[in-house]
Amino acid sequence: MKQFINHKEDMVTEAIDGIVAASGGALTRLDGYPHIRVVVRADWDKSKVALVTGGGAGHEPAHAGFVGKGMLTAAVCGDVFASPSADAVLAGILAVTGPAGCLLIVKNYTGDRLNFGLAAERARAFGHKVSMVIVDDDVALPDLPQARGLAGTLFVHKIAGAMAENGADLAACTEAAQRVIKSSRSIGMSLDTCTVPGSPKENRIPDGMAELGLGIHGEAGVEQVASSGAKDAVTRVSEKLGATMAKTPHVALVNNLGGASVLEMSILTRDLLDSSIGPQIQLIIGPDAMMTALDMHGFSVSVLELSEGDAELLAQPVHVAGWSGCKLVGTAPILPLPDGLSPVRSPASSHAPTKAFLTDCCAVLIESEDDLNALDAKSGDGDTGSTLATAARALIEAIDSLPLADHTQLYRAIGLELSQTMGGSSGVLLAIFFAAAGDASSAGKPMREALQDGLVRLRQIGGANPGDRTMVDALLPALDALQDGLPQAAVAARKGAAYTATLTTAKAGRATYINAEQLEGHIDPGAEAVARLFEHLAS
Amino acid sequence: MKQFINHKEDMVTEAIDGIVAASGGALTRLDGYPHIRVVVRADWDKSKVALVTGGGAGHEPAHAGFVGKGMLTAAVCGDVFASPSADAVLAGILAVTGPAGCLLIVKNYTGDRLNFGLAAERARAFGHKVSMVIVDDDVALPDLPQARGLAGTLFVHKIAGAMAENGADLAACTEAAQRVIKSSRSIGMSLDTCTVPGSPKENRIPDGMAELGLGIHGEAGVEQVASSGAKDAVTRVSEKLGATMAKTPHVALVNNLGGASVLEMSILTRDLLDSSIGPQIQLIIGPDAMMTALDMHGFSVSVLELSEGDAELLAQPVHVAGWSGCKLVGTAPILPLPDGLSPVRSPASSHAPTKAFLTDCCAVLIESEDDLNALDAKSGDGDTGSTLATAARALIEAIDSLPLADHTQLYRAIGLELSQTMGGSSGVLLAIFFAAAGDASSAGKPMREALQDGLVRLRQIGGANPGDRTMVDALLPALDALQDGLPQAAVAARKGAAYTATLTTAKAGRATYINAEQLEGHIDPGAEAVARLFEHLAS
Repeated sequence: MKQFINHKEDMVTEAIDGIVAASGGALTRLDGYPHIRVVVRADWDKSKVALVTGGGAGHEPAHAGFVGKGMLTAAVCGDVFASPSADAVLAGILAVTGPAGCLLIVKNYTGDRLNFGLAAERARAFGHKVSMVIVDDDVALPDLPQARGLAGTLFVHKIAGAMAENGADLAACTEAAQRVIKSSRSIGMSLDTCTVPGSPKENRIPDGMAELGLGIHGEAGVEQVASSGAKDAVTRVSEKLGATMAKTPHVALVNNLGGASVLEMSILTRDLLDSSIGPQIQLIIGPDAMMTALDMHGFSVSVLELSEGDAELLAQPVHVAGWSGCKLVGTAPILPLPDGLSPVRSPASSHAPTKAFLTDCCAVLIESEDDLNALDAKSGDGDTGSTLATAARALIEAIDSLPLADHTQLYRAIGLELSQTMGGSSGVLLAIFFAAAGDASSAGKPMREALQDGLVRLRQIGGANPGDRTMVDALLPALDALQDGLPQAAVAARKGAAYTATLTTAKAGRATYINAEQLEGHIDPGAEAVARLFEHLAS
Repeated sequence: MKQFINHKEDMVTEAIDGIVAASGGALTRLDGYPHIRVVVRADWDKSKVALVTGGGAGHEPAHAGFVGKGMLTAAVCGDVFASPSADAVLAGILAVTGPAGCLLIVKNYTGDRLNFGLAAERARAFGHKVSMVIVDDDVALPDLPQARGLAGTLFVHKIAGAMAENGADLAACTEAAQRVIKSSRSIGMSLDTCTVPGSPKENRIPDGMAELGLGIHGEAGVEQVASSGAKDAVTRVSEKLGATMAKTPHVALVNNLGGASVLEMSILTRDLLDSSIGPQIQLIIGPDAMMTALDMHGFSVSVLELSEGDAELLAQPVHVAGWSGCKLVGTAPILPLPDGLSPVRSPASSHAPTKAFLTDCCAVLIESEDDLNALDAKSGDGDTGSTLATAARALIEAIDSLPLADHTQLYRAIGLELSQTMGGSSGVLLAIFFAAAGDASSAGKPMREALQDGLVRLRQIGGANPGDRTMVDALLPALDALQDGLPQAAVAARKGAAYTATLTTAKAGRATYINAEQLEGHIDPGAEAVARLFEHLAS
């Protein structure tokens, strides 16, 4: 099964159970499973106008995800892409409607109109005040007498919901809903069809094409168009919307139809604000998956011409899972890059013993190039010797520009030099080692402790523990033994290096990919380099 | 192109521009495009500990979507699935770090460790207090020495972020972050691979299989397993998590890896709470797309063992686009179904003239069955006559159970009868017509006005206007003319019916799908039925 569902027949009730359980007690439902699936605000006291909506499932988070204080009072859920029954709608209305009455918000599909319409009549027969508005925001076919209801429905939920929460009466909420519907426009575009559970996926959109002007039930778009990326898609969508938009401030709702990645949605949002209708977009909702068509790899844009008070109603806080807020478009000033990205080099200074010592160390590494490469060939790509030798040569070349007389700055300068001349992870790790030693030195620690601090940091970043078959196996015991003198350190380093030849499971670095037989008997090249350095210095 | 992007090279900067523009001024960025891509809190004053994170792009909304008061201070973005450079990380650190210092939160990938590690050293060389934690919450391979960082990272962002916002110092934030990392576990499962822009999609997961224990960079899962639905997937995931979970309260984070539908995510959430680890899940975050792998059709579950204070820190409000809040698991009581779903039938009463009138009307419809079917065959499926005749026969059969002496209740009773015996849209529409007439009658309106009110409601729900080639074309003029008498009404109805034969574009009902040539010269069967009724009553 290519979807995370269980039985097709139970998927709507199971999804509702998930939504209710993850709502933190804000939502509950009517006890009408399996046919009556109504999600209700748990804190509802019927003191204000109730907002009831619904329709087929498959559009999640619509509609249950918008039930909560300040938006919907109840959502009536049908099967996937099928209207709920009039009985289910009636149950929703009767459960939440008090003296203030009930506004039904219905998307313009025949099944929804009929079932909500009949339920409204039956509720009225009980003496309830019920009004009903039909959302038809689709502009895919400007001449279609029955435009579909799309994500523009969410403008109605939010604005009428905020008004109801603020105490407006049913007439005012209904009038506002009708005004919002008249001022809303939506259109969608998709690169692929959606996967309806239980049905084979229809592959009707060829590669390189997209469908423009589609609904939210998997129905085909009004036209197939060539698709050449995000900007092209947004241009087509914004042309359709802009054709009938007033040149006044609008709010835009950027909706993921289900299968577009979050990355793509942000690119589309950027392109929308950069499009021909961008200058009219003053407020933005999303991008987010708000009114989906299951997993459809597409998006829709809805726009609403702003009237007085809309901005406040749209911004009024709500705590519902599906609403991501309404924001002002317009960014804060871009910040300049901070100083310090070009590292400050300490002034060069001379110190003959340090220069000799460093040059000597570098010479050992250069002489060991071939041996270390040969060792590395057993467990890696055979370049450890060359990597170290290249860095050593660069260090010798730069030696007179280093702050040789200031050991604290010298550690840092060596780290900087290695980070710029030595490739790969090892260059970064040694740069970190010397930089951390420099920090310790600047805090007054003597050489051995500074190097030990460097090793701690190197191990933290590199993730290498003793026994992991890395240079740590030589360097750690060497630095520990260094308090007893260089000869002892050299002995410890060699012993540690020899130990790596007995380790047949590398746990850090590239040798983790090599099997035991290939590793056995071969010293790790990094550990060998450390041993040779200490042995040379002790000799 | 099967994705909504423009140029591969620009997609990260374009996405960041979209994120920043849709943030309502809460976010900005450093002026370092194209290589330095750092999203920063626009309101940041360096007065508290800064939290800096980042990594490759492709995980949106992570990480920029979590930048904001109470969570991250800055997010450093690399290319898709590639670490940002040490320079970029350093720019982020330097831009936001004040005297309180900076906590780096790094997911356990070599590139991220090295680049964040090196940047930390360079920032420390400037005298900044910088600590770094490495998140390794993946439990796919319990023995892996280098477990990956997955969506559990968000626990660290939220808890350390709330502490920093509350004024905790760097040591406390770091310690808490380390404790959260130790107590976090994550594992993911997917039905398909992700589509990396610019690369062909790898189809390595056969139908009926899923990958368990995968990362967030499209890498293969630890094992391929047979996939038999949501519950099975959750069972496998919860077994892996539960193997090492303490039997104490946990918070669970349910993450959409990008391409699962919102419907599926709710089902998975329900199954998780119903799983073996369900009883330990006290708090829940999501389901939502928080740490994605582009469009991967999968999910991950992260759990954190709750320590004292965690619940409050997790619940502390933040205003960032990516965070959907942390809720208590446990639902409000399920509400009983409301009374009134079984319609109350008015008591039968007798009234000879009404019975005769109704029976007469029904007889006309029964007699017209074949003629109306024939007309309907020209524009629809040829069953209008049978539909009306069946309803008429049912009405005659039920006539002695109707409240014939109470016209208001009679309208409603007829509506109810029709909604139960007459199939299809027309049954619902006529039920609505009579129910609305009953409402008008109960408000004291005489018969003609009551029927006119019914027609208004029928037109609202059915969406039919005069000229749309429906029964409205006969009924509307007939009711208007009825004030002058039945003969005038009959003439108007016939004239309206004849008019429908001249209409070659149906705008409502099933005839919308029929072309002009087929419609021309044929009266709409609904309009014909109305005309015959009025003609018979007038004769």
